[in-house]
Amino acid sequence: MTAPTSRDLTVTEVRLTPVLVADPPLLNTQGVHQPYTPRLIVEVVTADGTTGLGETYGDTKYLELARPLADTLVGRPVGDLNRLFTDADRVAVDASRVLGQVDVGGLRGVQTADKLRLSVLSALEVACLDALGKSLGLPVHALLGGKVRDAVEYSAYLFYKYAAHPDGVAAERDDWGAALDPAGIVAQARTFQERYGFTSFKLKGGVFPPDEEIAAVRALAAAFPGHPLRLDPNGAWSVETSLEVAGELGDVLEYLEDPALGTPAMAEVAARTSVPLATNMCVTTFAEIKEAFTRNAVQVVLSDHHYWGGLRNTQHLAAVCRTFGVGVSMHSNTHLGISLAAMTHVAATVPDLHHACDSHYPWQSEDVLTERLAFEGGTVRVPDAPGLGVTLDRDRLAALHRRWLDDDGSLRDRDDAAAMRVTDPGWVTPAVPRW
Amino acid sequence: MTAPTSRDLTVTEVRLTPVLVADPPLLNTQGVHQPYTPRLIVEVVTADGTTGLGETYGDTKYLELARPLADTLVGRPVGDLNRLFTDADRVAVDASRVLGQVDVGGLRGVQTADKLRLSVLSALEVACLDALGKSLGLPVHALLGGKVRDAVEYSAYLFYKYAAHPDGVAAERDDWGAALDPAGIVAQARTFQERYGFTSFKLKGGVFPPDEEIAAVRALAAAFPGHPLRLDPNGAWSVETSLEVAGELGDVLEYLEDPALGTPAMAEVAARTSVPLATNMCVTTFAEIKEAFTRNAVQVVLSDHHYWGGLRNTQHLAAVCRTFGVGVSMHSNTHLGISLAAMTHVAATVPDLHHACDSHYPWQSEDVLTERLAFEGGTVRVPDAPGLGVTLDRDRLAALHRRWLDDDGSLRDRDDAAAMRVTDPGWVTPAVPRW
Ligand SMILES: [Mg+2]
Ligand SMILES: [Mg+2]
Repeated sequence: MTAPTSRDLTVTEVRLTPVLVADPPLLNTQGVHQPYTPRLIVEVVTADGTTGLGETYGDTKYLELARPLADTLVGRPVGDLNRLFTDADRVAVDASRVLGQVDVGGLRGVQTADKLRLSVLSALEVACLDALGKSLGLPVHALLGGKVRDAVEYSAYLFYKYAAHPDGVAAERDDWGAALDPAGIVAQARTFQERYGFTSFKLKGGVFPPDEEIAAVRALAAAFPGHPLRLDPNGAWSVETSLEVAGELGDVLEYLEDPALGTPAMAEVAARTSVPLATNMCVTTFAEIKEAFTRNAVQVVLSDHHYWGGLRNTQHLAAVCRTFGVGVSMHSNTHLGISLAAMTHVAATVPDLHHACDSHYPWQSEDVLTERLAFEGGTVRVPDAPGLGVTLDRDRLAALHRRWLDDDGSLRDRDDAAAMRVTDPGWVTPAVPRW
Repeated sequence: MTAPTSRDLTVTEVRLTPVLVADPPLLNTQGVHQPYTPRLIVEVVTADGTTGLGETYGDTKYLELARPLADTLVGRPVGDLNRLFTDADRVAVDASRVLGQVDVGGLRGVQTADKLRLSVLSALEVACLDALGKSLGLPVHALLGGKVRDAVEYSAYLFYKYAAHPDGVAAERDDWGAALDPAGIVAQARTFQERYGFTSFKLKGGVFPPDEEIAAVRALAAAFPGHPLRLDPNGAWSVETSLEVAGELGDVLEYLEDPALGTPAMAEVAARTSVPLATNMCVTTFAEIKEAFTRNAVQVVLSDHHYWGGLRNTQHLAAVCRTFGVGVSMHSNTHLGISLAAMTHVAATVPDLHHACDSHYPWQSEDVLTERLAFEGGTVRVPDAPGLGVTLDRDRLAALHRRWLDDDGSLRDRDDAAAMRVTDPGWVTPAVPRW
């Protein structure tokens, strides 16, 4: 732990670069991932020439908020993070405008103006921590009180998927093939295990009728006996269906993730099963905690530093969970290496992280870094280099930004239902409970 | 915000210096403060020669824990704070030995092995943050995400008191005079206002029958119309008495502090009055939060970074309180300037601190600093110098340590009942509820 020469850590500039990133045709209860997904890359520059990196959702509604929020940083010390959040309240969210847009946020709970703001602030906070760490010669985890482990465990994130995007023109081809039945899911899990060494497995469900997904989890249990397994239908089931699945799979599940939608339904399921319930849908903000915890609706909160408002808020969330005897782990949406590094730094500082974290990262063939982060034995080594420990590749960033510029607007807002309609013109986002 | 030249921030030494500090004859429900009170001064030294300061309780039971806990720091990076806490569990507390000792901790809730450990760790954490800040050229508040205010408001801490200690031999004489009735309390409050500019007033109660204390608060309300007032009998009252006092004083009290002892009694009082209840007795650890918050037993938690385990835990507590709609402010026991600086730094980072903090500091004529912290307009300016922004006076430290060495052991463990027995040989700590 050493610190370099005296430097001026005032923020002089915040660069915001939207990109489109290749994404495989992964299925969920609302539809299928489009060929490209929007992300926003944030660069915070300080007077000493240091650049810090952050990353968040890149849909239009986030981009519109990002500029005014970024402007509140300029001229201030890069470490002035508490004030960044208190001052953000002054940046108005035109809720009628942004909240009315296509809402894949449904997969991560109800959209609110506060949550949008926090999702943007999180990228600014991470970029500030990266810059501060680089300037001080300290890894980000050291700015968060230091790591309590040297590697962070992740789980294999299994998806039902098509072999290729239905839209043949825009399609990026991946080498994973299709996975539309138990055998396909087991094969996918084996590839995950071979390539990255993952030892726990999560299946994104809510795609097929529960019996088919129960069969897939049973096949996983047979193929990987004793390994932690999870199933996440994104709230697609009724309370009764949730309880039936819990009854069928209780002996092999580490937890059941958001089987039913919302705190009352989750509380009812939780009261009638001994299978722990995890969530990234009914508890997604601090405001939702009191009711959920008071009703014992969830046993594990899956934090996502993007919408919880950054790495320090993630630590606060972990403290709240610890206080109430609720477990904590991490949720993931499609993200790049900047966010994986951020997740790894903060996860390394949380003492009671007892479940492997989720990450989409293995599904992302593209990144904006000079060097991708690697999974070894199912873990990511906690970087000890200053800041996040990752380096921006400006050529790659420019290329992915060019793709965003060239897009006609159809992919700038993630819309899993629209992608589904390419093959199924009558597709509408299913009402819940779907089963 | 600048950072100095490259430095080795490995902890090389932790110095522990117990001291005895002059303390006025302040009364509470358990007795009266002794002429001297023990404190422990902690110095954490890093390889680059930086020294960080911390301070905590100095009774024997804390001293015995301090050495083994301090030893876990040596050889590690000074910023490795999360691991300091996780590793501390390995340092056993001989509970049968230390918890059996005289327990003035009763004024701050139940004593547990965990709380003892945290009370020592807090001083180590503060000293590490001070050293880290000095090495990096950053104030402690910047290591906590930055201040959101430039000054922290404190309240005048009014006490019933004798003019002098009953023990004439050891007595330190203060210039405050006696305060044993409403007029004396109002006079004391006026002195507080004149000397320090305090605008809110807290009376330590539980000393006289409730009617006399009600009269004192009424006198304060008449002398300082519209100013926030508080009354804290340290749990001396029954539920019915608490409700009677709340009824009598509801129109002038900002909050009533620990009127009755323990969460069930506090919950009952809270359910039957609209006067907010504050506590530093029924919620003193994270483990006590769930029951108290679920039962709505308290409306304001008075944090004390000493027994909550440091400045980062105080931020976590504030996050938990915010999440549950419970207010947060700060408790104080007798302390010196190192702790006042620490309290001020962390208080400056808590966004929703809506009540003036408590501090005994004006009662302390002695300190171990080259320069005392000053109250202006009832506030302490948040230091922006590196670290805590205070400087140790080694001569003063040596003198107060000499007093500790010379003591025959009778003052090394705070014992308010023993001091009371000097004039009232039959005094025993009153059973609660006392009224
Ligand atoms: Mg989920
Ligand atoms: Mg109190």
